[in-house]
Amino acid sequence: MALISVGTMAFDAIETPFGKVDQIVGGSGTYVAYAASNFVTPIQQISIIGYDFPQEELEQLKKRGVQLEGVEVVPDKKSFFWSGKYHLDMNTRDTLVTDLNVLADFNPVVPESYQGAEFLMLGNLSPNIQMSVIDQLKERPKLIVMDTMNFWMDIAMDDLKAVLLKVDVLMINDAEARQLSGEPSLVKAAKLILQMGPKFLVIKKGEHGALLFHENQVFAAPGLPLEEVFDPTGAGDSFAGGFIGYLAKTKDISFNNMKTAIIVGSACASFCVEKFGPNRLREVTRVDLEKRLAEFVQLVNFDIELV
Amino acid sequence: MALISVGTMAFDAIETPFGKVDQIVGGSGTYVAYAASNFVTPIQQISIIGYDFPQEELEQLKKRGVQLEGVEVVPDKKSFFWSGKYHLDMNTRDTLVTDLNVLADFNPVVPESYQGAEFLMLGNLSPNIQMSVIDQLKERPKLIVMDTMNFWMDIAMDDLKAVLLKVDVLMINDAEARQLSGEPSLVKAAKLILQMGPKFLVIKKGEHGALLFHENQVFAAPGLPLEEVFDPTGAGDSFAGGFIGYLAKTKDISFNNMKTAIIVGSACASFCVEKFGPNRLREVTRVDLEKRLAEFVQLVNFDIELV
Repeated sequence: MALISVGTMAFDAIETPFGKVDQIVGGSGTYVAYAASNFVTPIQQISIIGYDFPQEELEQLKKRGVQLEGVEVVPDKKSFFWSGKYHLDMNTRDTLVTDLNVLADFNPVVPESYQGAEFLMLGNLSPNIQMSVIDQLKERPKLIVMDTMNFWMDIAMDDLKAVLLKVDVLMINDAEARQLSGEPSLVKAAKLILQMGPKFLVIKKGEHGALLFHENQVFAAPGLPLEEVFDPTGAGDSFAGGFIGYLAKTKDISFNNMKTAIIVGSACASFCVEKFGPNRLREVTRVDLEKRLAEFVQLVNFDIELV
Repeated sequence: MALISVGTMAFDAIETPFGKVDQIVGGSGTYVAYAASNFVTPIQQISIIGYDFPQEELEQLKKRGVQLEGVEVVPDKKSFFWSGKYHLDMNTRDTLVTDLNVLADFNPVVPESYQGAEFLMLGNLSPNIQMSVIDQLKERPKLIVMDTMNFWMDIAMDDLKAVLLKVDVLMINDAEARQLSGEPSLVKAAKLILQMGPKFLVIKKGEHGALLFHENQVFAAPGLPLEEVFDPTGAGDSFAGGFIGYLAKTKDISFNNMKTAIIVGSACASFCVEKFGPNRLREVTRVDLEKRLAEFVQLVNFDIELV
């Protein structure tokens, strides 16, 4: 069951209350690939990198079943670079630098070998790029999941709405759900967004977990209470990767299975934040994952009988 | 199984984005009594009111099994009055007026007929008043639950810490847990607070639900996603009333049963916010409660099997 993942592969500089790294591998596509490859292969990656992206990272990804034919390498430019600093509460951050570099020319071409993939993860990119990938697929995937952000709502709302009409699952945070719908109540926001195209809406609430909306149903996943959140960078992408990876593995896109996929995504995100960049995600084993999923079961499990 | 509830019975003036009331019955003791009396009687109320507190309200409470012998009536003074205005997001509010009135002289005397109660709910009041009630009980209750707030941490931290040594369950919000422990991470905050006396800690997170900590265990209850939060006043007290009422009914104070009690408390809180003041809570039936509890089960229920 192939999964196409479109997203950035980049460098980040990150400062958190716990430390600082001047250059670490990042990018939404990187995190999605690491998380999803725990569950399904091949991951058919679509991205663009510069001459400076580490060969070892590409080798690691390949070993995990990530295909790189759709990753364009630009020999005379640098990879996309983002730098940010997290506030004390770790829920908010300031972007310090955004150097698009190769990303300015990103015009993805879907390799012939990727045709027929049944799952598509559209990482947070310009809506036009997301649309271009959808348009290139000869057969519509069984499931298209889209991530986006407030930035695109500010500058390209019409393009974004056009993509919404083509996707099955939209994944945004609570502030973005309010912005997209113009409605402060999340329940009302969800109803409006489910009329814009997607049949499923995932609202990410950071440490407070996530909500899944579908028709008149709703599911709430908690965030795992963590002693230390070391670096939140990539948590949302790891969540997305775990979510779609689990769906691709189980080949079941029902609401019921998506609830489980949300928990799997939350588990991936909870690992991601334990170290800088994708460092923790890279080393997570199957046993680690199963232990953490058991923690989620314990976390929310209760008996009720109103005697 | 008697439950003593110590708290205010008062008037509130409330402004929310949805409307305004100039005078409505309120007070932590009122909300606790309405919520808890769905599960257990008698509720043995300890409070103080002025000449202006409505006789009909007292009659209503009596009908629900609330004993009022411990409610002092001051014939020449007004009841405690609080006025507040909620911000657009309903998560924050400004206090406009606090008229202590009778509360300035509150010096509760536990009636002889209340002695032997097995459950004690200490509503948010000065730590000295909370301590005085504990000291007057000839037999220690099976379970003492304490609510408090940042105000007492600011002006009476030592007194508050003395009460903490005497209680089983502390109920505070996330900001208060951070203030009490001096630790921004909630998990670390919980560990520190569990060394201050209480064996159980409930951290209320408003619309994001609640966390229950005990030894090395943690339970996360979601907030029910509501289309409209009409008036959050009393939600925390309704939560507390449902929580301790359910525990008193089931006579089981294990961690496992407290998880269920948290869900019951959350259900009570979710009703409370649907109308102004205690209006909705007053009319809730057993059937309403069971339906809502079923919604909570649906909300968090997932299957996991990592194939």
